[in-house]
Amino acid sequence: MIEIIGYLASFCCIVAFFPQVLKVLRTRQTRDISIGLLVLFLIGNSLWILYAIPQNLTPVWITNLAVLMQVLLLLILKIKFK
Amino acid sequence: MIEIIGYLASFCCIVAFFPQVLKVLRTRQTRDISIGLLVLFLIGNSLWILYAIPQNLTPVWITNLAVLMQVLLLLILKIKFK
Repeated sequence: MIEIIGYLASFCCIVAFFPQVLKVLRTRQTRDISIGLLVLFLIGNSLWILYAIPQNLTPVWITNLAVLMQVLLLLILKIKFK
Repeated sequence: MIEIIGYLASFCCIVAFFPQVLKVLRTRQTRDISIGLLVLFLIGNSLWILYAIPQNLTPVWITNLAVLMQVLLLLILKIKFK
């Protein structure tokens, strides 16, 4: 049961970034998104992966890896569309 | 050691939202932030709290509770400054 909640939570957080990435790709506007959010989130995601793997918290590290890739893409787009 | 990494990860994710909240409060501009991101993230955060509490994953639920409150504030500001 807890594992199912974990995977549902994981799914929500992973798909949460899809509308943001699509919005940025469509509008090419990133002015209102804070670069500080993206950089700190990248560091946080990396640390969560290091926290979750040794404890076999699969939903936690899968989520953070998927979110990390999308946040990295947003950061690249933020710099590109400046 | 793992616990320390967890708290560092938690700290990064919690403070990650400060620059975004401050930016929105200062500029009153939220156009480039996706409402889908905020809504899905709120659901995800709530589910992570339900996942982490029974397993005593303290850094996980503390982070999600703190992030949830900031994402909720961003959602309110997004609707208010529309």
